Amino acid sequence: MFKKILIANRGEIALRVIRTCREMGIKTVAVYSTADAESLHVRFADEAVCIGPPQSSESYLKMSNIISAAEITNADAIHPGYGFLSENAKFSKLCEEHHIKFIGATGEMIDKMGDKANAKATMKAAGVPCVPGSEGIILDFKDCIKVALETGYPVMLKASAGGGGKGMRAVWKAEDLKDAWDSARQESKAAFGNDDMYMEKLIEEPRHIEIQVIGDSFGKACHLSERDCSVQRRHQKLTEETPSPFMTDVLREKMGNAAVLAAEFIKYEGAGTVEFLVDKHRNFFFMEMNTRIQVEHPITEEVVNYDLIREQILVAAGVPISGKNYYPKMHAIECRINAEDPYANFRPAPGKITTFHAPGGHGIRIDTHVYAGYMIPPNYDSMIAKLITTAQTREEAINKMKRALDEFVIEGVKTTIPFHRQLMDHPDYISGNYTTKFMEDFVMK
Amino acid sequence: MFKKILIANRGEIALRVIRTCREMGIKTVAVYSTADAESLHVRFADEAVCIGPPQSSESYLKMSNIISAAEITNADAIHPGYGFLSENAKFSKLCEEHHIKFIGATGEMIDKMGDKANAKATMKAAGVPCVPGSEGIILDFKDCIKVALETGYPVMLKASAGGGGKGMRAVWKAEDLKDAWDSARQESKAAFGNDDMYMEKLIEEPRHIEIQVIGDSFGKACHLSERDCSVQRRHQKLTEETPSPFMTDVLREKMGNAAVLAAEFIKYEGAGTVEFLVDKHRNFFFMEMNTRIQVEHPITEEVVNYDLIREQILVAAGVPISGKNYYPKMHAIECRINAEDPYANFRPAPGKITTFHAPGGHGIRIDTHVYAGYMIPPNYDSMIAKLITTAQTREEAINKMKRALDEFVIEGVKTTIPFHRQLMDHPDYISGNYTTKFMEDFVMK
Repeated sequence: MFKKILIANRGEIALRVIRTCREMGIKTVAVYSTADAESLHVRFADEAVCIGPPQSSESYLKMSNIISAAEITNADAIHPGYGFLSENAKFSKLCEEHHIKFIGATGEMIDKMGDKANAKATMKAAGVPCVPGSEGIILDFKDCIKVALETGYPVMLKASAGGGGKGMRAVWKAEDLKDAWDSARQESKAAFGNDDMYMEKLIEEPRHIEIQVIGDSFGKACHLSERDCSVQRRHQKLTEETPSPFMTDVLREKMGNAAVLAAEFIKYEGAGTVEFLVDKHRNFFFMEMNTRIQVEHPITEEVVNYDLIREQILVAAGVPISGKNYYPKMHAIECRINAEDPYANFRPAPGKITTFHAPGGHGIRIDTHVYAGYMIPPNYDSMIAKLITTAQTREEAINKMKRALDEFVIEGVKTTIPFHRQLMDHPDYISGNYTTKFMEDFVMK
Repeated sequence: MFKKILIANRGEIALRVIRTCREMGIKTVAVYSTADAESLHVRFADEAVCIGPPQSSESYLKMSNIISAAEITNADAIHPGYGFLSENAKFSKLCEEHHIKFIGATGEMIDKMGDKANAKATMKAAGVPCVPGSEGIILDFKDCIKVALETGYPVMLKASAGGGGKGMRAVWKAEDLKDAWDSARQESKAAFGNDDMYMEKLIEEPRHIEIQVIGDSFGKACHLSERDCSVQRRHQKLTEETPSPFMTDVLREKMGNAAVLAAEFIKYEGAGTVEFLVDKHRNFFFMEMNTRIQVEHPITEEVVNYDLIREQILVAAGVPISGKNYYPKMHAIECRINAEDPYANFRPAPGKITTFHAPGGHGIRIDTHVYAGYMIPPNYDSMIAKLITTAQTREEAINKMKRALDEFVIEGVKTTIPFHRQLMDHPDYISGNYTTKFMEDFVMK
């Protein structure tokens, strides 16, 4: 087993990993930018190394600094969390070259699955249902016209290196294709330094339902059922739940088997998520695979009684998984509490938290790196806490979330607490009858 | 179902009940003494009524004020929490006379079970194994000598109205009996206004293991397995766990059946706890029945996925229980965080909390009514928070507790956090090989 793990991340996920390491008796090294010196992940790690200034490119994305920090502190493994270098094939390979175990996918797997166009080709080969569209990257605009005709409008143009909705355009008719092609490529170039595009059939009334998988170094994988992440704003997830209110036992079995097939086909090692779009007829299509832990992993942990970070570490250390699949015994909901003003178009609202009082009691889980007096830096993701409720039924989990949101006091900065509170009273949310389009019509009261 | 419940209590248990009521859509009324105006139970209730000055006798024990508060606010039920009036037969009857449902045992049951000497006679009649000793109350010192001889030394003298260790004396030989008799009676008179005594065989190497039961208004009861509460200091529980490391499946079945037998014999309605002493040969003896919710109820909730307060409310409203018993699927530990100085003989340490940062993450539950800036009044129980960890195994639950205690920051007052941290490292605790005598030899480092 590893003796010391460096966590190449910040905020709540760094703290999340540190907590499990402590419970496993593994020493931890935090890295931090100068903007994060007061973060709890720095305080609770056994050691902490400053790796640079606030800009991510100079610290959390600076591979050489992170490798140096691991070497100086004698860490024998690196956990990358999510975002930053978690799905960077070069970094995974670099760790390997330095004989530091990267707790995540190998460079080869990330190459296969991190690039969305490649991933789709791989999944087609594995026999996993995929959304109709281009075979890999579109060559040029002429090719784009041809693929759009073959696929049939409406179509979705997507940046191959994309994420967070950047470089994506929905196109409903042929005459809009040129504008979309140009602007999506431009946006992708700016965001990712790469303007490769691919195309997919646009699924109407889609739900975003993902399957958590874990694979071991012996080629065996299992699934831990689904998470419904359909409540999104500009392709950013806001709240997630498991089980999905749209799920049936038959569909879970089919999607779970497809996700395990996907993972075993590429001999996937570690925790990963296979994201699917599900249409209103319960057809499902492979969207992408995230070769890392997800923000929303706690809801799965709560309903299947499983510590995903622990299992990530165990499989990275060569321990085989049990091989059985896990099914939800309870219902869990996560609300992402962001420092954003929901009344001002969710504009980021960094600043100093003056009061922080988290809800507690039965069925409440809080994952956060902040506290009263904490200064939220403007440089990073605006998520400051995850609030998770777990109960016997969906109705009870919603009621628990309402009372927990009512108890949650954060002063000094605007947060998305009022948004979530309204969401929990929304008839379409309560009925479970929502799609990824839900937020398009949502207006704060 | 009830429309509005008044909670005749304070602190974390009042908040605990309010939380479940909110989740069930039931309105709540808090009552508070002038010392508790800033407590969270006041803030989170729908209504709050001040019922008097800090002394409990003038507020939380003042029946007329509480009944008036319920009538003014139109509450149709009262939840008494634990302590205060929760096992007061007169109060239970008074509620009934005022057509307010008392969410707890009827006056008749409290009369039967609240008085320890009566309870033992009732349990003997039911066929539940009891500790050998006096048949009910000891008449006088002459009777006391006789009963001690029949029972065989060592014996334990106990106040009939006792609780919290008051009015109890262990007697190892005949010549010490007179002193013990006099001082125990004197102590009981001072604490409870009553000096009735009874006697029991002193069980050597005893463990305190209790069974949670719940009964409905149709005469049916079930059990929810055990809690091991053997880590006590002066008969005050410090930490509890479930399952008990001393338990076997066979013993759980026997003790569970005995507890259900006890509850059904008296047609017990509501949540209750049957406390047993278990000797080193795994013989078990009825000690007493608590006809109320217990401080340590959350560990049961965590391992059987059950909201005990919700079920209390449901059975009080006439809903039948399912009738099946519940068995632990996980391991849970509770540490009672008290405002006491563990380095100064656990002396109470009221005062103002300047910093309060609770641990979080997977498998952590916090029940507390305090926050940064809260002034702990000197008038009440010193418990300020309950920290509960839940994991797949006992070892993992202990490791989780260690890291959670390490994260827990309370400044401004002394707390028992350092005690619990040392306890979690104690070889006898880790081995599970502890009895109610454990604390006699425990020294803070």
